[in-house]
Amino acid sequence: MADVKKELRIGMVGYKFMGKAHSHAFRDVSFYFDPKVEPVLQAICGRQEEDLKQAAEKMGWNSYETDWRKLIERDDIDLIDIVTPNNSHAEIAIAAAKAGKHVFCEKPLALTLEQSKEMLKAVQENGVIHMINHNYRFSPAIQMAKKLIDEGRLGKIYHVRALYLQDWIMDPQFPLVWRLNKDISGSGSHGDLAAHSIDLARFLVGEFEEVTGILETFIKERPIVESSSGLSGSASTDKFGKVEVDDASVFIARFENGAIGTFEATRFAGGNRNGNRIEINGEKGSIRWDMENMNNLEVYFHDDEPGLQGFRTINCTEELHPYAGAYWPAGHIIGYEHTFINLVTELLNGVAEGYNPLPNFEDGVRNAAVLEAVEQSSQTKQWVRIADLLE
Amino acid sequence: MADVKKELRIGMVGYKFMGKAHSHAFRDVSFYFDPKVEPVLQAICGRQEEDLKQAAEKMGWNSYETDWRKLIERDDIDLIDIVTPNNSHAEIAIAAAKAGKHVFCEKPLALTLEQSKEMLKAVQENGVIHMINHNYRFSPAIQMAKKLIDEGRLGKIYHVRALYLQDWIMDPQFPLVWRLNKDISGSGSHGDLAAHSIDLARFLVGEFEEVTGILETFIKERPIVESSSGLSGSASTDKFGKVEVDDASVFIARFENGAIGTFEATRFAGGNRNGNRIEINGEKGSIRWDMENMNNLEVYFHDDEPGLQGFRTINCTEELHPYAGAYWPAGHIIGYEHTFINLVTELLNGVAEGYNPLPNFEDGVRNAAVLEAVEQSSQTKQWVRIADLLE
Amino acid sequence: MADVKKELRIGMVGYKFMGKAHSHAFRDVSFYFDPKVEPVLQAICGRQEEDLKQAAEKMGWNSYETDWRKLIERDDIDLIDIVTPNNSHAEIAIAAAKAGKHVFCEKPLALTLEQSKEMLKAVQENGVIHMINHNYRFSPAIQMAKKLIDEGRLGKIYHVRALYLQDWIMDPQFPLVWRLNKDISGSGSHGDLAAHSIDLARFLVGEFEEVTGILETFIKERPIVESSSGLSGSASTDKFGKVEVDDASVFIARFENGAIGTFEATRFAGGNRNGNRIEINGEKGSIRWDMENMNNLEVYFHDDEPGLQGFRTINCTEELHPYAGAYWPAGHIIGYEHTFINLVTELLNGVAEGYNPLPNFEDGVRNAAVLEAVEQSSQTKQWVRIADLLE
Amino acid sequence: MADVKKELRIGMVGYKFMGKAHSHAFRDVSFYFDPKVEPVLQAICGRQEEDLKQAAEKMGWNSYETDWRKLIERDDIDLIDIVTPNNSHAEIAIAAAKAGKHVFCEKPLALTLEQSKEMLKAVQENGVIHMINHNYRFSPAIQMAKKLIDEGRLGKIYHVRALYLQDWIMDPQFPLVWRLNKDISGSGSHGDLAAHSIDLARFLVGEFEEVTGILETFIKERPIVESSSGLSGSASTDKFGKVEVDDASVFIARFENGAIGTFEATRFAGGNRNGNRIEINGEKGSIRWDMENMNNLEVYFHDDEPGLQGFRTINCTEELHPYAGAYWPAGHIIGYEHTFINLVTELLNGVAEGYNPLPNFEDGVRNAAVLEAVEQSSQTKQWVRIADLLE
Repeated sequence: MADVKKELRIGMVGYKFMGKAHSHAFRDVSFYFDPKVEPVLQAICGRQEEDLKQAAEKMGWNSYETDWRKLIERDDIDLIDIVTPNNSHAEIAIAAAKAGKHVFCEKPLALTLEQSKEMLKAVQENGVIHMINHNYRFSPAIQMAKKLIDEGRLGKIYHVRALYLQDWIMDPQFPLVWRLNKDISGSGSHGDLAAHSIDLARFLVGEFEEVTGILETFIKERPIVESSSGLSGSASTDKFGKVEVDDASVFIARFENGAIGTFEATRFAGGNRNGNRIEINGEKGSIRWDMENMNNLEVYFHDDEPGLQGFRTINCTEELHPYAGAYWPAGHIIGYEHTFINLVTELLNGVAEGYNPLPNFEDGVRNAAVLEAVEQSSQTKQWVRIADLLE
Repeated sequence: MADVKKELRIGMVGYKFMGKAHSHAFRDVSFYFDPKVEPVLQAICGRQEEDLKQAAEKMGWNSYETDWRKLIERDDIDLIDIVTPNNSHAEIAIAAAKAGKHVFCEKPLALTLEQSKEMLKAVQENGVIHMINHNYRFSPAIQMAKKLIDEGRLGKIYHVRALYLQDWIMDPQFPLVWRLNKDISGSGSHGDLAAHSIDLARFLVGEFEEVTGILETFIKERPIVESSSGLSGSASTDKFGKVEVDDASVFIARFENGAIGTFEATRFAGGNRNGNRIEINGEKGSIRWDMENMNNLEVYFHDDEPGLQGFRTINCTEELHPYAGAYWPAGHIIGYEHTFINLVTELLNGVAEGYNPLPNFEDGVRNAAVLEAVEQSSQTKQWVRIADLLE
Repeated sequence: MADVKKELRIGMVGYKFMGKAHSHAFRDVSFYFDPKVEPVLQAICGRQEEDLKQAAEKMGWNSYETDWRKLIERDDIDLIDIVTPNNSHAEIAIAAAKAGKHVFCEKPLALTLEQSKEMLKAVQENGVIHMINHNYRFSPAIQMAKKLIDEGRLGKIYHVRALYLQDWIMDPQFPLVWRLNKDISGSGSHGDLAAHSIDLARFLVGEFEEVTGILETFIKERPIVESSSGLSGSASTDKFGKVEVDDASVFIARFENGAIGTFEATRFAGGNRNGNRIEINGEKGSIRWDMENMNNLEVYFHDDEPGLQGFRTINCTEELHPYAGAYWPAGHIIGYEHTFINLVTELLNGVAEGYNPLPNFEDGVRNAAVLEAVEQSSQTKQWVRIADLLE
Repeated sequence: MADVKKELRIGMVGYKFMGKAHSHAFRDVSFYFDPKVEPVLQAICGRQEEDLKQAAEKMGWNSYETDWRKLIERDDIDLIDIVTPNNSHAEIAIAAAKAGKHVFCEKPLALTLEQSKEMLKAVQENGVIHMINHNYRFSPAIQMAKKLIDEGRLGKIYHVRALYLQDWIMDPQFPLVWRLNKDISGSGSHGDLAAHSIDLARFLVGEFEEVTGILETFIKERPIVESSSGLSGSASTDKFGKVEVDDASVFIARFENGAIGTFEATRFAGGNRNGNRIEINGEKGSIRWDMENMNNLEVYFHDDEPGLQGFRTINCTEELHPYAGAYWPAGHIIGYEHTFINLVTELLNGVAEGYNPLPNFEDGVRNAAVLEAVEQSSQTKQWVRIADLLE
């Protein structure tokens, strides 16, 4: 737009729910912020040409490709954005890195820790910028919590408890969609939801030391549908297939700094559409956050005047709250999509200035290590040390 | 974008807070919805060329004008969007209507009821489409409340209580900005905030019959600043000027259908950044809503099973909630700006199909009548009938 | 109990809902507090001997009388506690005062302001201790709010908004019980509920200057039942009688100190079983309280650190919260009945030390003046000055 | 009181916080309920005569003993109520049972599972009535939840998550009181707080199958005080002693019916004075409860009308809510102490009719087994099966 600003030409692989969220963020970021490069929605990639074409038009992409390899070969693409199902992340990301493209990848980084490590190696060896999309970090309220913690306002952290509660597959007739297929998604609520909680905990509390936990599948068989690509759908056949991913992931953790954590991610918590909640208790204060009212941060300070101590509900929409000043006057709330916009600002600035923004593939690997540790623990019924998996 | 879709070329007068909100809505609407005409950000208009140029570029307008009369003369403009201070609404809107342009106008419609009536007359006589921007109606939760009420789920309405609580000018050193200047804004919290509550009440409950109330100015003098155009700022001089608008507006009302209402709009309610709340109690149920958690509608049904009766907190983010399906999966909340996007969809469809969407200038007039009745009442200390002002 | 502590022998007239609440408070007060006289449940009085006898036994009264005049004549009674319907308060209180008994009376003080003044005159002329039962003042959270206001922590008060929302008579088949009979109760929601809000406002904000408002009866006729003495019941006949009291009371007020108030009391707010709420906004801070979560006080301080401003939820159950130290450790909440216990402590200490505790009959008169002013206003549609009624 | 009602003469050992709560319940129960025996506060027992005497007088006990053995020997005592520190429960309870007294015991039942089993054996062999004081079960909201679950309204249970968060010993200068002494209390937050959560889970969900968890002590040394008997106090010396009990207890569990649970009890969750919370998600619905607003039960039903689904906040104060009808009209909340009153009603009726009310010593043993399993797991870092400990 501004004549002197360099452009960053995006090639995005995938175009469903996350494709929509990423596309919107790239379109909208410069309206609110002033990123140091200007994103251009250059090309979108998918396999079903008719749907793809419509998506490209709807979301404002300049062109499309039906083969991601072609996309990567194109000279007019600077960054590959990967929003495909998890089983294709590694191959695409590694190829993109080898082609010298910057890489922005949806979480979880890959199907396995091993794949994740290979991806990190590829981006590092090829010197490209990399980032993973843990968008919830970028809620102003979470950023405010981070600021308080970094300033020592909570003191030493004792407890973190994180819930990610959903309920969209509770109906036993809900079909075996791709997110329930282990080959495609790697895991169920674990990689989809717990991965977010792990990221929030790593961001706010620090590194995990060890974990023990359970992955559980409550509904063991589900109807098979012709097209299992959608997020929703209902059984069209009477064929049932085995559900190989978890419906719920529950674990406890010790952190390197001595904090203790409890984690629960599930798709079987009726009444919770997207209940991503976190609470942290430290020596000097506590915070509470719930994605369903994401603009609010609840904060407690131990050194508040006696008799007047209590959790404050802070509507993090003021100019002095992280990212919030770019939007609307205080009290005029933002929503889910703005976490993507905030994150993309960091990505664009990272590319412009040549540093890897956070969270990046290293975070992806560390996150994958925690996920894998819980999986191992669920099988062996033992505590698993994260460091052992990261060696 | 789509080759067969007709375009609607917007000319917007004003470019501050509301200009930003409108611009964004026009830019973003087709990403989420499929309006029957495609908006084009054709030209933006303001008086300070340097600021205007930057705003045009930042917000994506194709061109700019520094004289709104020129804008109206342009052949390549189909609709005039008025986001200037209230004292210029009437003149611009009437000129636009006479020039055959459709008109979209910020609330309150004008400085006075008289002006508002003239505006309505102008758009009607010239046969152009008109709409007023009461965006809060377009929160999915409010739309859901409307649906319930229309279906008779609350029965006969007994009570409505509406609060619009802000706190941004509580500091006596906060300067005499344009919103505190009666010549420019017409009123203070009354036209700015109470107008919104009146609209919600008219939308959900029905027409006002009579009102009695108070307009109050708590801080009688404030520092004068050189440039009083901004929303914020601090005193740069030691000159003080008289505040001629209200800091708070408080009134009670009877509705034509027998309901009773209480209304309070204030900029002196510390801790409430944008506390736009409404509660309605009917024969069969009740609803509660608060803009600061705007995705939630609280609903009570009298015929719920005894012992299990209580307000339900409904996160209106599901596909079957009005407008919500265009955005994200359930539980992934939207924010303030989406109320504008939803409204603009209706505006575009109205233009495309040749009908006046709601709320339009007739609503603006009726709203102005209630505002004026309260002002009269505040002076005469009498009840004032709305019908008497509308004759 | 303790041999050196003087006893205060109570004679209570009435034995229904309020009789239960008062009896319990007298029984329980010395368990938690150390009042300077020890209450003795000496005699209870009512007209239906069989019921009365059972009540006396159940609630632990030493004796009973079926004629309140006899009760007042008894030498072994020091204080008359009046918990009868409102139409008998004046006669009993005046007679008790003349007999030299201290008087504790349920609110509202009487049917009319005139009667209330006579009661005040009687207790003053006879030099007896008097108190009126506005129990909600004695919630620790309200007392804490009072403390903050008295210390200037909220600064000058701008706004008070008080709601008292109930829903127990919304069913049109709900019968014409005594509380709906004007001769017995004087008014409906007005004297029953608004009287409480007026007391909270007088306690926390100060004296009323003028009011304008509405008393409304939504259901004009109701079934007549044989025994209309109970709080509940359903129609046993097909005879209907006219409802002469208000279902709802809505008014706005100016206070002597410049604050503005909005008040709404209703029995037609579905889903609100006992929604007694108050919010106050001052120059430096705000408070919010809701009886349904009565242990919590929400407090906002304008001078909290920028970016960390928000309402704090203070669970007023700590030792340093008023009255709370007498009960349980922090976080272990108390309930409705404890407001009576706290109040009774003050009554007993007042009697012991010879001063009139607050709120007393003077408060009752001032409260009645506000009630009557609203009633007048409802008829004349004019603002009514409280001082004019108090002359 | 009533001449025909049999009395139950209580002898209570201990007189601090729990002694106060029990005493009050026995005093107050017949005011609200109609238990089938009438409790008599016959004798209280403690070691410090002066304090004891004052407590007896304050709380209304007829007599006192300074040796619990003497108390048990007395012919005029029917039931022994044990509210001493945990290390004396077993000896007193067993002696009482052998003496043919009914036994009511504070939780946790004893220091160890072994002791708990001996206590159960003693009461069973001697045919006395026994009950353990898990009072939180007796919140009307929890009872309502139980009713819904028993009726199948939540369907198969998938998840339970229970938190018991306190913050009273976060100050490192808080001294080594008896509750922090392993010899006296057995454990810290584990037996004090987690025991309550385990009871709620057993009551609402069912029996535990296996657990894995952590007991953690954040502050390893604390000041030693002369008198370490109180709940509070501050260091009076510069001598420090080792803290041998846990500050926090965190574990996950599998239940026999397939549900998965997460549990966290801690005294290090700043801002949570008594945050006893539980959430349960089942096939058809969910519930949420928080002791700090204990009158409310939040309930979600999956089969509510689409678009109108959400958690309902039910104020469990109506006549048709368990126990609530004995107190006040709907919306007039009760508090912590009423959970004791409700429980004591069951105890008295159990004694009167010769059955063991729930929860009794068998519940105490099962609870102790879970506590012990977590302790073992914390040391061995293995999952521990409850059945193995109960053999």
